[in-house]
Amino acid sequence: MNNDMLIRVTRYYRALNRLRAIGLEKVFAHNLADAAGVSAAIVRKDFSLLEIHGQKRGGYEIQELIEIIGNILGKGENQNVIVIGCGRIGKALMHYQGFEPDGIKVVAGFDTDPVVYSNPSHPIPVYPLSRLDEVIKVHNVKVAIITVPESNAQECYMNLLDAGITGVLNFSPITLKPQKTRQGIIPVVHNINIGLELEQIFYELKFKNND
Amino acid sequence: MNNDMLIRVTRYYRALNRLRAIGLEKVFAHNLADAAGVSAAIVRKDFSLLEIHGQKRGGYEIQELIEIIGNILGKGENQNVIVIGCGRIGKALMHYQGFEPDGIKVVAGFDTDPVVYSNPSHPIPVYPLSRLDEVIKVHNVKVAIITVPESNAQECYMNLLDAGITGVLNFSPITLKPQKTRQGIIPVVHNINIGLELEQIFYELKFKNND
Repeated sequence: MNNDMLIRVTRYYRALNRLRAIGLEKVFAHNLADAAGVSAAIVRKDFSLLEIHGQKRGGYEIQELIEIIGNILGKGENQNVIVIGCGRIGKALMHYQGFEPDGIKVVAGFDTDPVVYSNPSHPIPVYPLSRLDEVIKVHNVKVAIITVPESNAQECYMNLLDAGITGVLNFSPITLKPQKTRQGIIPVVHNINIGLELEQIFYELKFKNND
Repeated sequence: MNNDMLIRVTRYYRALNRLRAIGLEKVFAHNLADAAGVSAAIVRKDFSLLEIHGQKRGGYEIQELIEIIGNILGKGENQNVIVIGCGRIGKALMHYQGFEPDGIKVVAGFDTDPVVYSNPSHPIPVYPLSRLDEVIKVHNVKVAIITVPESNAQECYMNLLDAGITGVLNFSPITLKPQKTRQGIIPVVHNINIGLELEQIFYELKFKNND
């Protein structure tokens, strides 16, 4: 499944949960197409690739679709996440409600500053980095969000891999590369560089205006 | 210039500014290669594509390189940005210091909540949305960061385009599409969906484990 298809399938999944919540039992390809902003033909093609088949009289059982797609997306499985670095962006992610409909749960934050991790006002517990191994084991965490300053990011990343983290979403401005861990696993690393995104937008605008 | 090359050139630019700050006047391809995490051959290839030529005795004048690359990246030109939606993520971006070395400046925030825009504690001024047109004109702003909730994002986007914004970095979970403005301009839109990035990481981990 490529990135674009994953985006669509995630949207189908969200729409299905909403439709179920309002009491519907059956859905048609064009309903999901509307919800995902694509054509019904694309929904049918995606479903065909995922080997999801409709009913003879047309349409799909919502409950069944939620189970099949949920299984494909890894729902129901553990999707616990930790946040490393509880500055402003880290805190914003700890408070963010938008992950929960996707079943993703931020279970803990980590910081090096005693003032930060001793403060009881956080919505989720914040620990010193020395407790990383312990917390990762207790919550069976595989994925971490890095929001530490540039100067600490590489060291922080190495510590996470050593502690058993295999998926990283990195917001620090340095690009972290997927390098094989001591356990022989190649981690999944996504880098989001906000400054660079803005740079690119300015660059593309400049380029467009020169056309 | 493709995305990868833009990332590298931005890194050369940052390294050059740092080298100049510590008093250096000349730099070699392998210095910039180290700073950008690539090989000297790639630096030379990038420079050749950008029609940047070294000196006969080898190396490059740092000041000259900063001027040439800065010009390519649009530095020295206006890179003012506004933030729409001053919730936690919006506030974090308003406080973020990391844009300034790139010459990008967040000049104003906007919010619909009087409690937010009447609060004088923000690091930059926060205005009600009704003052969008005025502030955009005064600061000659072309690029906006959207950090409003999903339900307001599309309307907010349309208002920005109407007000003359042509570049958008969208953090709301809906995907905004570049649609032609009333002025006949096709905007540059980058969407960052944090929930979806995490989804993808979990999906890729699951897929890898099934191999």
